[in-house]
Amino acid sequence: MLSFENDYSEGAHPKLLQALVDTNFVQQVGYGEDEYSLRAKVKIRAACQDPEADVFFLVGGTQTNAVVIDGLLSGTEGVVAASTGHVNVHEAGAIEYTGHKVLTVPEKDGKIDAEDLRALLSGFYADPTHSHMVYPGAVYISHPTEYGSLYSLAELTQLRDVCHTYGIPLFLDGARLGYGLMSHETDVTLPDIARLCDAFYIGGTKVGALCGEAVVFPRHGAPKRFITHIKQHGAMVAKGRLLGVQFDALFTDDLYFEISRHAIDMAEKLKTGLAARGVRFFRNSPTNQQFVILENGFLKQLEGQVRFSFWEPYDEAHSVVRFATSWATPEDNVEKLFAYFDE
Amino acid sequence: MLSFENDYSEGAHPKLLQALVDTNFVQQVGYGEDEYSLRAKVKIRAACQDPEADVFFLVGGTQTNAVVIDGLLSGTEGVVAASTGHVNVHEAGAIEYTGHKVLTVPEKDGKIDAEDLRALLSGFYADPTHSHMVYPGAVYISHPTEYGSLYSLAELTQLRDVCHTYGIPLFLDGARLGYGLMSHETDVTLPDIARLCDAFYIGGTKVGALCGEAVVFPRHGAPKRFITHIKQHGAMVAKGRLLGVQFDALFTDDLYFEISRHAIDMAEKLKTGLAARGVRFFRNSPTNQQFVILENGFLKQLEGQVRFSFWEPYDEAHSVVRFATSWATPEDNVEKLFAYFDE
Amino acid sequence: MLSFENDYSEGAHPKLLQALVDTNFVQQVGYGEDEYSLRAKVKIRAACQDPEADVFFLVGGTQTNAVVIDGLLSGTEGVVAASTGHVNVHEAGAIEYTGHKVLTVPEKDGKIDAEDLRALLSGFYADPTHSHMVYPGAVYISHPTEYGSLYSLAELTQLRDVCHTYGIPLFLDGARLGYGLMSHETDVTLPDIARLCDAFYIGGTKVGALCGEAVVFPRHGAPKRFITHIKQHGAMVAKGRLLGVQFDALFTDDLYFEISRHAIDMAEKLKTGLAARGVRFFRNSPTNQQFVILENGFLKQLEGQVRFSFWEPYDEAHSVVRFATSWATPEDNVEKLFAYFDE
Amino acid sequence: MLSFENDYSEGAHPKLLQALVDTNFVQQVGYGEDEYSLRAKVKIRAACQDPEADVFFLVGGTQTNAVVIDGLLSGTEGVVAASTGHVNVHEAGAIEYTGHKVLTVPEKDGKIDAEDLRALLSGFYADPTHSHMVYPGAVYISHPTEYGSLYSLAELTQLRDVCHTYGIPLFLDGARLGYGLMSHETDVTLPDIARLCDAFYIGGTKVGALCGEAVVFPRHGAPKRFITHIKQHGAMVAKGRLLGVQFDALFTDDLYFEISRHAIDMAEKLKTGLAARGVRFFRNSPTNQQFVILENGFLKQLEGQVRFSFWEPYDEAHSVVRFATSWATPEDNVEKLFAYFDE
Repeated sequence: MLSFENDYSEGAHPKLLQALVDTNFVQQVGYGEDEYSLRAKVKIRAACQDPEADVFFLVGGTQTNAVVIDGLLSGTEGVVAASTGHVNVHEAGAIEYTGHKVLTVPEKDGKIDAEDLRALLSGFYADPTHSHMVYPGAVYISHPTEYGSLYSLAELTQLRDVCHTYGIPLFLDGARLGYGLMSHETDVTLPDIARLCDAFYIGGTKVGALCGEAVVFPRHGAPKRFITHIKQHGAMVAKGRLLGVQFDALFTDDLYFEISRHAIDMAEKLKTGLAARGVRFFRNSPTNQQFVILENGFLKQLEGQVRFSFWEPYDEAHSVVRFATSWATPEDNVEKLFAYFDE
Repeated sequence: MLSFENDYSEGAHPKLLQALVDTNFVQQVGYGEDEYSLRAKVKIRAACQDPEADVFFLVGGTQTNAVVIDGLLSGTEGVVAASTGHVNVHEAGAIEYTGHKVLTVPEKDGKIDAEDLRALLSGFYADPTHSHMVYPGAVYISHPTEYGSLYSLAELTQLRDVCHTYGIPLFLDGARLGYGLMSHETDVTLPDIARLCDAFYIGGTKVGALCGEAVVFPRHGAPKRFITHIKQHGAMVAKGRLLGVQFDALFTDDLYFEISRHAIDMAEKLKTGLAARGVRFFRNSPTNQQFVILENGFLKQLEGQVRFSFWEPYDEAHSVVRFATSWATPEDNVEKLFAYFDE
Repeated sequence: MLSFENDYSEGAHPKLLQALVDTNFVQQVGYGEDEYSLRAKVKIRAACQDPEADVFFLVGGTQTNAVVIDGLLSGTEGVVAASTGHVNVHEAGAIEYTGHKVLTVPEKDGKIDAEDLRALLSGFYADPTHSHMVYPGAVYISHPTEYGSLYSLAELTQLRDVCHTYGIPLFLDGARLGYGLMSHETDVTLPDIARLCDAFYIGGTKVGALCGEAVVFPRHGAPKRFITHIKQHGAMVAKGRLLGVQFDALFTDDLYFEISRHAIDMAEKLKTGLAARGVRFFRNSPTNQQFVILENGFLKQLEGQVRFSFWEPYDEAHSVVRFATSWATPEDNVEKLFAYFDE
Repeated sequence: MLSFENDYSEGAHPKLLQALVDTNFVQQVGYGEDEYSLRAKVKIRAACQDPEADVFFLVGGTQTNAVVIDGLLSGTEGVVAASTGHVNVHEAGAIEYTGHKVLTVPEKDGKIDAEDLRALLSGFYADPTHSHMVYPGAVYISHPTEYGSLYSLAELTQLRDVCHTYGIPLFLDGARLGYGLMSHETDVTLPDIARLCDAFYIGGTKVGALCGEAVVFPRHGAPKRFITHIKQHGAMVAKGRLLGVQFDALFTDDLYFEISRHAIDMAEKLKTGLAARGVRFFRNSPTNQQFVILENGFLKQLEGQVRFSFWEPYDEAHSVVRFATSWATPEDNVEKLFAYFDE
């Protein structure tokens, strides 16, 4: 079956698997102190153009969001997110489980608008009862967002400015960061992100790794005793090499960027091809997730032949569905998909 | 350098790596619903002789302990552990982070004595102020323990009986379960454990996998909505196949048991060889971790040549150190180790 | 200074103080097992027409909301509230601190609309990804609401029906319950509330007591080990008599209802009088909180002479402010207030 | 019935009740900003000889311990307590509920020995695996302890020194502080405590108040946003005057000290009288709690006539029981108690 269901349907990029095989019997110390992890951190710092960045490897996205956000916030603080933010919707309350409220602003194309953020923050401090309320203590954004959209450099800079005015950190969820960085429509680079954010992660799970997210705190910005904090949250892996080897490979010879570009190329091909076939798009997405509006009867026909993600009902007769490409999408599969629309 | 530092110094057993390579491009659904995970669960149920067992795959030990214990306990309950229990000492307070107290009984050879447990439980209910105290809501044991010791079938049965008298579940941490099951000195089998425990896990990380622990709740005993609970604790992996493929391989053709037996054989060789060389043992261990008392000057000599774990000071001149074998220990290395003692 | 700032500006109704004085030296057991608490519970059960009701006394509103909601929910659940609900806005994240998300529906006159609730619940279960989301596990309503509005018997019945369809409890925050029950515009009685809700509290702090809220779980519905749960949340008072004596007095000879009626009479007088003086109301409130739109310059004039609560800006030149009456409001004070509007 | 069961069997000292009556109708702002609270804080600062002390009023002991300890600790830290510490035994896991472990040292006469504390702290930092463990982040002591014992000025100074060597705060639970300060055997004054501790509370509930504990953070040492922290823990009372009025009265004309001295005088009388009657003491207590060993048959006889607290079994035929005096104990009652021993 043809699957565009998501960007984690396959295992890992073959170079990562090969690196795991090649290093398998070299004895290493555990808990992220292995030589591969150390080497990967050096490469990531270089790619971020921040030699002072603190880098940690965690396993998955929800875990990373909870561990980082709980690390950035003090007890009386919550995190600001777009209403559609992954932490607000699809993480089973993992943030609240750590004791913190998710404070929301309405999404604008899946993003937080800097003016909405400024309004929330200034409104909070203007409210004479705010000491009885949750303090906004950090801002969470995803890039690409849950809708595939991207912040422009100007937007990111504005958000950073608002955050810094109020003395709170800006955290960027980069579960699909590679696909954002390689978009044809972005003006944001990895060093930009390292410069503008106080914390972010470079997603591995959805960009070629078996698992793994590289958390970066630019400018030696890691919360105190972050290793113990990771352990306490059950997020420490004994064989840290599993993550180190993979990120070492991903950041060797620009592999991370190269495979991300492939996903974008495939998404562009899919987008152009579907548009040419009269398919309506629910939102414009410059990244690897494409949201289209299809007739329910047609979706029925695709069943058992093409896999995609149901997103939400559109109207009585139509649904919004998501087609995702990835580092692993064969060009051929896109062509095959078109065939279903040509029938 | 020769390393006996722990049982997670290498990557994975080659058969597991090969399975990951072989299945890499087969598209699968995420979050543990992939065919490899489903297949591994069937095999684990068979090995446990419990076709009704609920099986879940998590990433690491501390995570598994926190997720399972928090799943078994209600709000007013704590978990009983030996004072030396991993959850009480070396998990950075991960259990308390979930809101639950660890109630301790003194360790006896690293184990909980059934009579000590009975005394704690009967004492609790006899105390007229117990409604102002933490209710003992589950019992945590490790097998092998942190000291390499093992429960006998009789001891395990007694613990189970006490637990059931008080209506609380018995949870067994099997981070090194394979090494316990293959010990020359055990009378406990995997089906025994499935029969006597209400929850346990079969450790992968320390027994041949890159990562992964298989949690088993015999007799359909999983806590309600355990999938959501896992997600909430940040313990869900998107590419569940990573865990499924490995456990599928481990439970094919008894690989898990076979590689565990190798570790035990190496430990027995090491034990016999060191004893013959006059080395004193701190505790008798029938499993892959051996605790010996060595002279500090001699330890100094080994530095840079042999890696081991410092355990605790013994007296002014001596220390307790741990030598661990594993599925990956070459017999040759044990011989090489002896050479240092022969000098 | 004339104060209409809130309904907790004075101490306690004199009959409560007298009862504290009268019983002061009678030795009693602690932690709510004193005879006054037991007697108050009997009277509250009678007033609720539910002889099986479980009754507990806690100290304040935020505490009560957190303790009750955390008691009603299981780990993977959150509580549904109106966006304006006190638990969502003005409790400093006390609910999230217990690990649970507050799931919101848009407020309609400060209330939850039964159809909005049904849509949230049916939408949740219809969502194929809901196992990665927070389960709606209870519904929180306030009566009167934060805007002084009231549920009709029909509305309350509809909410109850939706809750029961989905098997989740309905919890009513009655911080100002007396003022709701004595409103001229309500058709809801205390027995109705006991019949339709699964948990609620009868507010004392804002209705004549120094402190204290009586939590009622109709039909023996208290969560298991609720005493220990209260203790764990730091909400147990050693001298339970303080709460028992006060509620015993409040529920003797209908004092609670009588003093509530006084507050309503004063609010009606205030409402009629201000309306007659051309004052615009922000929302219609049938209870003791009245929300009016006043010119900022006029508010400036009142400063130092009349105390009220600033609610929110209305437009450039006007603000919404709240005037609250209470059991303690002298009729004379309302007349004095009018004088400021007559100038 | 004659009750020596505890020190919270009566209501409040009449002067406190009178003050509540006298101030009842003076309108005040809520949440601790009332004039009585402000005045009480001034008096407490004076009594502590620390004009810079931050003072807050909370309702009860367990609440205060949880709120203060959670305020002092960061996420990766636990609190050190004696094994018999109230927070470790009789608070239903309230500390763990806030996510923090209670780390124990063996009790010595109910106290923490400074050398044991030093050993725990130095051992922790010497352990190469300590980043996988809970950091000791504060020290909890009670004074008087759960066994009525007291720290000497030298002992308190030593504890402070150890704490400061390791950069962690010393917190003193003064639920019965008055009885400690008025003991005939103490050399510790309130200013000493303010000088040596980083946080402590002056217990009201057990020393003459209906409820209330005054938390003191000397030298402006309150945790950041402590008001919001209190609110989040459900520990904020709307009518803060209830606490303010009582502490204002307690710290007027040394009432707190005077009524505490009475309890001590009664305890000394009881102690001398029982000793003269051949009663054996379980522990020597210089404060208001006296622990005696009585024959079970004799205890049976007292039933229904004298109330006391069962503490623990002593041997087959005897039990340890506690007799507590308080500010409210009539001298006559002590005589009446002796009569039972004279029979």
